[in-house]
Amino acid sequence: MFKLPTLLTRVLDQVVEPVGSIQPIRRTVSRVAINHYAYSAAPRPRPLSMAADYSSWLSLNDRSYSGRHLPPADPVAHAALPAEAAVTALFRREREIPSSDTSVLFMFFAQWFTDSFLRTSREDFRKNTSNHEIDLCQIYGLTEAKTCLLRSLQGGRLKSQIIDGEEYPAFLFKPRQPGAPMVFKDEFVGLHDEDFITQVILGDAPDERKDSVFAVGLEHGNSTIGNTILNIVFLREHNRVAGVLQLEHPDWDDERLFQTTRNILIVLLLKLVVEEYIKHIAPFDFPVEMVPFIADGERWNRSNWIAIEFNLLYRWHSLVPDFLGNGSDRLDPGNFRNNNPLVMSLGVEALIRQCSQQRAGKIGLCNTPTFLTDRWHPDLPSVQERSISLMRNARLRSYNDYREAFNLKRLTRFDQLTSDTKLCERLQAIYKDIDQLEWYVGIFAEDYGEFQMMGELMTTMVAYDAFTQALTNPLLARHVFNEATFTKTGLELIEATDCFQQILARNSGSPSAAYASFSC
Amino acid sequence: MFKLPTLLTRVLDQVVEPVGSIQPIRRTVSRVAINHYAYSAAPRPRPLSMAADYSSWLSLNDRSYSGRHLPPADPVAHAALPAEAAVTALFRREREIPSSDTSVLFMFFAQWFTDSFLRTSREDFRKNTSNHEIDLCQIYGLTEAKTCLLRSLQGGRLKSQIIDGEEYPAFLFKPRQPGAPMVFKDEFVGLHDEDFITQVILGDAPDERKDSVFAVGLEHGNSTIGNTILNIVFLREHNRVAGVLQLEHPDWDDERLFQTTRNILIVLLLKLVVEEYIKHIAPFDFPVEMVPFIADGERWNRSNWIAIEFNLLYRWHSLVPDFLGNGSDRLDPGNFRNNNPLVMSLGVEALIRQCSQQRAGKIGLCNTPTFLTDRWHPDLPSVQERSISLMRNARLRSYNDYREAFNLKRLTRFDQLTSDTKLCERLQAIYKDIDQLEWYVGIFAEDYGEFQMMGELMTTMVAYDAFTQALTNPLLARHVFNEATFTKTGLELIEATDCFQQILARNSGSPSAAYASFSC
Repeated sequence: MFKLPTLLTRVLDQVVEPVGSIQPIRRTVSRVAINHYAYSAAPRPRPLSMAADYSSWLSLNDRSYSGRHLPPADPVAHAALPAEAAVTALFRREREIPSSDTSVLFMFFAQWFTDSFLRTSREDFRKNTSNHEIDLCQIYGLTEAKTCLLRSLQGGRLKSQIIDGEEYPAFLFKPRQPGAPMVFKDEFVGLHDEDFITQVILGDAPDERKDSVFAVGLEHGNSTIGNTILNIVFLREHNRVAGVLQLEHPDWDDERLFQTTRNILIVLLLKLVVEEYIKHIAPFDFPVEMVPFIADGERWNRSNWIAIEFNLLYRWHSLVPDFLGNGSDRLDPGNFRNNNPLVMSLGVEALIRQCSQQRAGKIGLCNTPTFLTDRWHPDLPSVQERSISLMRNARLRSYNDYREAFNLKRLTRFDQLTSDTKLCERLQAIYKDIDQLEWYVGIFAEDYGEFQMMGELMTTMVAYDAFTQALTNPLLARHVFNEATFTKTGLELIEATDCFQQILARNSGSPSAAYASFSC
Repeated sequence: MFKLPTLLTRVLDQVVEPVGSIQPIRRTVSRVAINHYAYSAAPRPRPLSMAADYSSWLSLNDRSYSGRHLPPADPVAHAALPAEAAVTALFRREREIPSSDTSVLFMFFAQWFTDSFLRTSREDFRKNTSNHEIDLCQIYGLTEAKTCLLRSLQGGRLKSQIIDGEEYPAFLFKPRQPGAPMVFKDEFVGLHDEDFITQVILGDAPDERKDSVFAVGLEHGNSTIGNTILNIVFLREHNRVAGVLQLEHPDWDDERLFQTTRNILIVLLLKLVVEEYIKHIAPFDFPVEMVPFIADGERWNRSNWIAIEFNLLYRWHSLVPDFLGNGSDRLDPGNFRNNNPLVMSLGVEALIRQCSQQRAGKIGLCNTPTFLTDRWHPDLPSVQERSISLMRNARLRSYNDYREAFNLKRLTRFDQLTSDTKLCERLQAIYKDIDQLEWYVGIFAEDYGEFQMMGELMTTMVAYDAFTQALTNPLLARHVFNEATFTKTGLELIEATDCFQQILARNSGSPSAAYASFSC
């Protein structure tokens, strides 16, 4: 792998971010980098999807089938791959390896963000329930009908409640006697699959956690404290912005206030994705800019279609630390999950500060927490096992085939993949030939420097995917991104926002105390 | 309006088509012309749709609302427009004005083609039930589930029947006693809204016509003899091509044979649309080429979205002649409609020959047959009245505003629109000011030469719409348009086909006798 001398790395680490902040440099480098990655693979439409192994009208048009970048692997070669258990074992964490500078907040943001468009169907692994857009469905729901259930229908606002002086989403379930069945409030019937939430997601969570589930856009919206805090902050920002617009446009009805606020909020999220999230992923945290109208004349500006590869690629389980915090307040993973009472008792700001100050795990093999690799029940596959099965069912081609598809040289030896000799030997023993190495294993096996947060192929694919599906958002199009769509105030807010901390501070009782960071 | 001297017109009329057939000239001129028109208006995404008068996530994403090119007109100015009855009267035919060289076959093709994607919702004028693609839903149906009902599920074929040695689609209804209720065959339940077909479309048609309705892709698929003959010919071509592929690929299952045949058939239709239909619309019948991959690097290559303007623009009712044929075989419009027995008795080829040899009406005002302008029942608006109402409900902007949006100079006087002084006076009397002239009236009022088939703005809009929504078809994309998608045989067939007559001849018992033409 490409290595920089240590001294050069340290120097670049100090200068890239400040030099990149000089506007003309920032824009030029951003433009070049965005196009470099956006053209690293063939533009959509892709000939194939998971609908069939050949091109059909369905595979070219029906986005309920997940896309795929490369044709499926040859079934015979595919059948000769190592046992799934051996592959799962490659991911298993023995001892937590920390990332160089990635915070737990980044991890929670990544989960919250990617789960909004990576939505594998529960009935058919070939299909998805994604809108294929960054549409902030986390707080708005997946359909217009669900959005209506979440709206207060007054002043363009979302339904919310005040608890101890703080704004939260409304509760999803009817108040009940302890132990009584959980039932959606009438106003939320149809928002989600009730059985799935009560039986699968909440499962055996303690009663107080079940009773404080919020009504938000997605089924998993309360399933980690990260999802909860991000939904809360974006809901607060929505209602704050709606209030500002209402003062400026007293003649606007609820509908117009809501829709215009939503336009603004979606673009705020896009700004964070490019200028904070991708920036953190970029080497030396170069401050990538969401260059205005960059997609306008580009061949990569084609309808979004989430591909199966990205559904797998983003499963960055190794970011998950063993514990959050230290000492007596230390939280284990069981307390990250389905725990709105914790969020309400500690407070959103305190939790975000804590998550911003603790490092996430390092992305790579041998670093997925055991609660994700090991079975909780002998008959039920673990989270990691399910990922491996999905990869196998999708018959994905090899790591080297994907390198080639993304315009990178094929590797000829395992030691070009990683300098970790022990891992090299393990991979060699399992796969024999580098050309047999599975893509999903390879992208996590890639070595990378301290100034990066993932290897070469994964960086390329993440950047390709993010740029070609975020910057094609219709709200960013030339005849849409303007005052008519956002109002003057909305445009100014968009211009002025480039990190989550600003959104947090705008909705905080003590703005100067708000602290949020993807780096630590 | 722009006028050519008569002599020049005659010379061009003789030379444009042969000179245009020289391949390098053809390709260069086609490329320039396609881009000229495709860039005549702002590219999609459009900020507005019929969902709202301002941009919202819905208006940018939900294609069940029809698109719109320009924001709605000011409600106050709009309310001061002339009475709808006065506008309808402008369209009414006193005496049929024939087109210069357009055949009745062109008229039937235009109806069959455009009705496949211009599908106004029956419940809400703002909405549509279109797939927004040229997908040959006329024979395949609008959804995958409906396609399945139409397939024989053997050899990649569509269900068909042989009557007197000729192939036709299957009948839709169960055989019945005379006067008994009409019921879909079990195999077609769910294909269409049964009540709508039996009560609204078939209405008071004679029994033998009702009993011979074919099971095809769209509700209106049997409602004119033109729809019927085109569906029959494309069904025959589908089954013929599937048979060829089956011989070449004995290992392929029904699914692959069907899907690959469909890929080929859709592109055959695209070829006819560009190289025969648009060619006929183009001045002097310049032989426009479907230039390979022309959309690849263009800013107009964006997701299709049918706009309300095109839904109105394509209502070329003035093409409809008063009668088809002469003498004792003369057919009046009542016999064009819901008349499959006629098609079966005369035969598809004889009818197509007849339709190819008779001129359609001339596109323009004062030339819509009275059965479309006048009411059949005092309480039910006529077809033309419904078009005027739709235009008004959509609050479309003026003719001049659309000229500007499509990069043409605004007119300042009615006599720039038409040299017909009587019509000029009528328009002046009704609208007073050329800036008040309604778009839908203006595009039909435009003068044009013998070498054209419609006026300047309508030509521009038709060309913009056709090129930017046909050439963006995913089957034409760079990584899709290849042997893998169509087979070598399929690609050769596509290359070799540029007119409907070829398709007709391929499916005829006496190919040399088959005759079909859009010009006469």
